[in-house]
Amino acid sequence: MIDRLMDRIEITANPTVVGLDPTYDMIPQTIKKEMLGRYGKTAKAAAKMFLRFNKEIIDAICDLVPAVKPQIAMYEQYGVEGLKAYLETITYARKRGLIVIGDIKRGDISSTAEAYAAHIRGVEIEGVRFNLWNEDAVTINPYLGFDGIEPFLSPCNEYDKGIFVLVKTSNPSGKEIQDLVTSDGSTVYEHTARLVSRWGESAMGTYGYSKVAAVVGATYKEQGQKLRKQMPHTFFLIPGYGAQGASGDDIRGYFDKDGKGCIVNSSRGITAAYKKNGKYGPHNFADAAREAVIVMKQDLEGIS
Amino acid sequence: MIDRLMDRIEITANPTVVGLDPTYDMIPQTIKKEMLGRYGKTAKAAAKMFLRFNKEIIDAICDLVPAVKPQIAMYEQYGVEGLKAYLETITYARKRGLIVIGDIKRGDISSTAEAYAAHIRGVEIEGVRFNLWNEDAVTINPYLGFDGIEPFLSPCNEYDKGIFVLVKTSNPSGKEIQDLVTSDGSTVYEHTARLVSRWGESAMGTYGYSKVAAVVGATYKEQGQKLRKQMPHTFFLIPGYGAQGASGDDIRGYFDKDGKGCIVNSSRGITAAYKKNGKYGPHNFADAAREAVIVMKQDLEGIS
Repeated sequence: MIDRLMDRIEITANPTVVGLDPTYDMIPQTIKKEMLGRYGKTAKAAAKMFLRFNKEIIDAICDLVPAVKPQIAMYEQYGVEGLKAYLETITYARKRGLIVIGDIKRGDISSTAEAYAAHIRGVEIEGVRFNLWNEDAVTINPYLGFDGIEPFLSPCNEYDKGIFVLVKTSNPSGKEIQDLVTSDGSTVYEHTARLVSRWGESAMGTYGYSKVAAVVGATYKEQGQKLRKQMPHTFFLIPGYGAQGASGDDIRGYFDKDGKGCIVNSSRGITAAYKKNGKYGPHNFADAAREAVIVMKQDLEGIS
Repeated sequence: MIDRLMDRIEITANPTVVGLDPTYDMIPQTIKKEMLGRYGKTAKAAAKMFLRFNKEIIDAICDLVPAVKPQIAMYEQYGVEGLKAYLETITYARKRGLIVIGDIKRGDISSTAEAYAAHIRGVEIEGVRFNLWNEDAVTINPYLGFDGIEPFLSPCNEYDKGIFVLVKTSNPSGKEIQDLVTSDGSTVYEHTARLVSRWGESAMGTYGYSKVAAVVGATYKEQGQKLRKQMPHTFFLIPGYGAQGASGDDIRGYFDKDGKGCIVNSSRGITAAYKKNGKYGPHNFADAAREAVIVMKQDLEGIS
């Protein structure tokens, strides 16, 4: 995954991943009307709205970006119908050549983590293997330590998949646990960084970056720069750009000297751009998303 | 939820929660044969096996225990069919009077946590509310801080639901992050404990325990005792009993002076008891589970 991702960043000359985190409020009225008409006031209607919305966004941006990152929670809230839309979004994005990072933030003890690893490994039933989720990579929460990571390592190597482990998140209260200062003068997230770096040694890609990557929020400039030095072989997924406040300048130091080693996420800033940009409206939300991707690409161009 | 849970512990005189974490290997051949015959080598077959297995276990134990805890990962690995079995297990368990703790270990930033909170809040579509998941309580990962907790508080109060936040997990590598010593001489999990305790203040039940509860592993005796003193208003869900090595004696100090304040989980130790107990076999796995519950209840009797 990590080599394919870096190749696609090179080809598109764009280290952007588009977060597919639809909300009900984000969906244009015409799509809402159509799906409510077809399926009534049901979870299926909401799920079909999300899927339609995602497909149009994907069509509009798939030649410009290397990857998309659907946030599973947005689909999961609509139950199994919602999760079907998550799965169909993955299938559709992969067909359009995009790498899919499932933002699932799972994390559990070993036997359970083994089950969650089915997201990237698939599952066997009487000798037949099914790839029921089929993300190229997923995000993982590290609070349970290596037990929650280990089951993902062999699928990373065997099926060319990847994981992104939360190191430093972009949200305000992330600091409550992550920024605790430990007895050696470093922080919890720096310890996590060291663990992630070590966990990644057995799953290296060919370009010097590991298939065990990290999530490092854009909203803490100096911390990101420091982590880049501490984790020279760890690829960063950077949330917090755009709607959450960070700009291209804030994340310059997260990239390596060749302008590689990162992919920057924007979700609402792209998918709901039609609400902010006066040139657009609900009828051409996908065009607004395309323009937002181009603007973001230009903002990042000085870096990578 | 917390009052109902404590009432049911009182009525059953048993602080046990049965973990419904089926694995393919755990399913008796007769059930496998039937479902493979009906549905072929498919995810649906595996899901139907789990559901049948769970229903028989639930029937065998529902008068003896207050609650069950399905581990969503075991179902999620089989995709949407698996998750349907998770949902039907919840519905069935609730019908049989059991409180259901969904072991989902979700955790994310605020807008996303809001979506995950649909597990206990339901979701609204054009003014119509759907309880698509409908657990009585769910487990939550605290790595992202209060942002990931806050959206769960109002459903806790409004719909009498609960959350169990990971403080100290029972698995060996849990210590890698949770046991880091901080600059004030305490540990990360003690900081988490303090946060959980504070987060719970706005969601107190009537018996002195909060609807914001904690997961505290059975495998660290002294730590559990210390946490009980530090968190007098926080109810504990204790994993790690039985198959993971801890006994009733190990967890005595986790309970309060009235023998309340905890529920102890056992999963395989009960559901796969037929594999360990010579008196039983695959044909009467549910009877074996019932006997295992009775033996566990006796082990815990001296405590609560």
